[in-house]
Amino acid sequence: MVKATITLASGKEMPLVGFGLWKVPAESAADTVYNAIKAGYRLFDGAYDYQNEKEAGQGIKRAIDEGLVKREDIFVTTKLWNNYHAKQHAVPMAKAQNEAWGLGYIDLFLIHFPSALEYISPEKRRYPGWWMDDDHDIVSPAKVSIRETWESMEELVDSGIAKSIGVSNFQAQLLYDVQTYAKHPISSLQIEHHPYLVQPNLIRMAQEHNIVVTAYSSFGPQSFLELPEDFRNRAANVDLLFDAEPIKSIASKHRVTPAQVLLRWATQRNIAVIPKSNNKARLAQNLDVLGFDLTKDEIKAISALDKGLRFNDPGHYLPNHPLHLFA
Amino acid sequence: MVKATITLASGKEMPLVGFGLWKVPAESAADTVYNAIKAGYRLFDGAYDYQNEKEAGQGIKRAIDEGLVKREDIFVTTKLWNNYHAKQHAVPMAKAQNEAWGLGYIDLFLIHFPSALEYISPEKRRYPGWWMDDDHDIVSPAKVSIRETWESMEELVDSGIAKSIGVSNFQAQLLYDVQTYAKHPISSLQIEHHPYLVQPNLIRMAQEHNIVVTAYSSFGPQSFLELPEDFRNRAANVDLLFDAEPIKSIASKHRVTPAQVLLRWATQRNIAVIPKSNNKARLAQNLDVLGFDLTKDEIKAISALDKGLRFNDPGHYLPNHPLHLFA
Repeated sequence: MVKATITLASGKEMPLVGFGLWKVPAESAADTVYNAIKAGYRLFDGAYDYQNEKEAGQGIKRAIDEGLVKREDIFVTTKLWNNYHAKQHAVPMAKAQNEAWGLGYIDLFLIHFPSALEYISPEKRRYPGWWMDDDHDIVSPAKVSIRETWESMEELVDSGIAKSIGVSNFQAQLLYDVQTYAKHPISSLQIEHHPYLVQPNLIRMAQEHNIVVTAYSSFGPQSFLELPEDFRNRAANVDLLFDAEPIKSIASKHRVTPAQVLLRWATQRNIAVIPKSNNKARLAQNLDVLGFDLTKDEIKAISALDKGLRFNDPGHYLPNHPLHLFA
Repeated sequence: MVKATITLASGKEMPLVGFGLWKVPAESAADTVYNAIKAGYRLFDGAYDYQNEKEAGQGIKRAIDEGLVKREDIFVTTKLWNNYHAKQHAVPMAKAQNEAWGLGYIDLFLIHFPSALEYISPEKRRYPGWWMDDDHDIVSPAKVSIRETWESMEELVDSGIAKSIGVSNFQAQLLYDVQTYAKHPISSLQIEHHPYLVQPNLIRMAQEHNIVVTAYSSFGPQSFLELPEDFRNRAANVDLLFDAEPIKSIASKHRVTPAQVLLRWATQRNIAVIPKSNNKARLAQNLDVLGFDLTKDEIKAISALDKGLRFNDPGHYLPNHPLHLFA
């Protein structure tokens, strides 16, 4: 049987397939998570930014209370948002997030973006997102170094709030730099990764340094079509990966769905995935992606779709005050 | 008349066109520099890595002694190499480099690469390059943060050794991070920049933050054909930019050389250039690139040659121990 977990640099085991909570509405998050656990999911990938941590935690607690799983069977990832990077905000915010989940501890705590923005208190604006005002197009960088934020992450490990820590949306140079001062290892790097944005050198660098890569937006444009225009436009100009060759014909050869091919393309290279679905059948399919193997040539043919096309880029969706985080 | 200098964040003026000392042999460097001054060059772009600082300084001193120029007419850039990033090595090494130039001070001191490698004393190996052993394929990263090295650069400003400081080969995320702790501004970012590697977002980010971009390898593959095989192969697979359209036809329209078009394509967007030539006529031509203007459409058509093709990439030429500095 294929091993369904991967060992992090912290020594902890992380499931290779999880459930991503981005865009799961708070109202339905508890049920969604509870049903996902019933379907077999054990990893839930959340974030302050997704505004559903408390509800996701309630879904997990219900499953624990009903004896479906134990806490230690579940792996919770969450992320620190940009406005709380300063030491005096990062640690209290992480504690508040941990309390919102209500499960005693977080399995993996990530810095969501390498981008410190000015503090906005949750009382003033519970969900600052990328924006400072109602025109939704201004961000104010804060003079908080990544080291300061990383050291707050390390404090979370030392105080037992987080079992493992990592980063998201980081480039290689910043990963090298964090490694020069990290006391606890970077356990995971979460990045946008699909056949239109392969980033082979970044993945090679991370894996060479024992940093487990987690892919988000594994289905590419699909995840962005339901978003506001600035995101949607970029996604609307390319073929959906579910309809693209060679993905379709590889799927039919293996008698699986294109979604399963996309997830296996990642997991077979030791990259964890966190798909989301509201559909019960697809929920089960997305989890069932370790039972077949693609050939080397199939993996290569899928990777050849690479266009360097990034959808989640604040240089693109913050036109009046862009952050060029991927340049 | 076109302004031939650009103001750095430090307040100092830097010539927009200079002479690059990479691959200038130490034996002929003094004469080359002296003749370049005679031809009108005022900026010389050196580095410890180029192993010709002392000789370049001698060429400048000869021109000063002969009354051709004064020290303040000349702008010297040099760079700290990877093996000397630690505080206890960076400052003494920079002082030694300043003494090698013999001109009292350095105008612009850059961190050559965002890559701290283990210290090797100059006594043991005067020129470590990217290599630790005679097989030329091993590098050992050192646990020295970019902050530690940047603070050494700042010490050079405070002690009068450098007038301005900056970085080379940095990605946007690391630039943002340095800006959170910098006490002296990042005056310049030096990067590989030619129509096959345009990097528009990185340039936009730098210029938005008042960091002057300096382009190296403005002629693209040309600079790499004379190097060992690993470099050369990549350069041999594309058209030389001097032969590529629309560069040739734009050159003939403006009655200039393709080299002049390539340099003007950069300087017209406020990007400084540092070409090198051993040929007297071309030396003069390369300097004469501010007297004509390309149209917006011409600039756009040249930029459309972009292939994301990087030649100077240690992820490529250190195959056995790659550093993925641009992932």
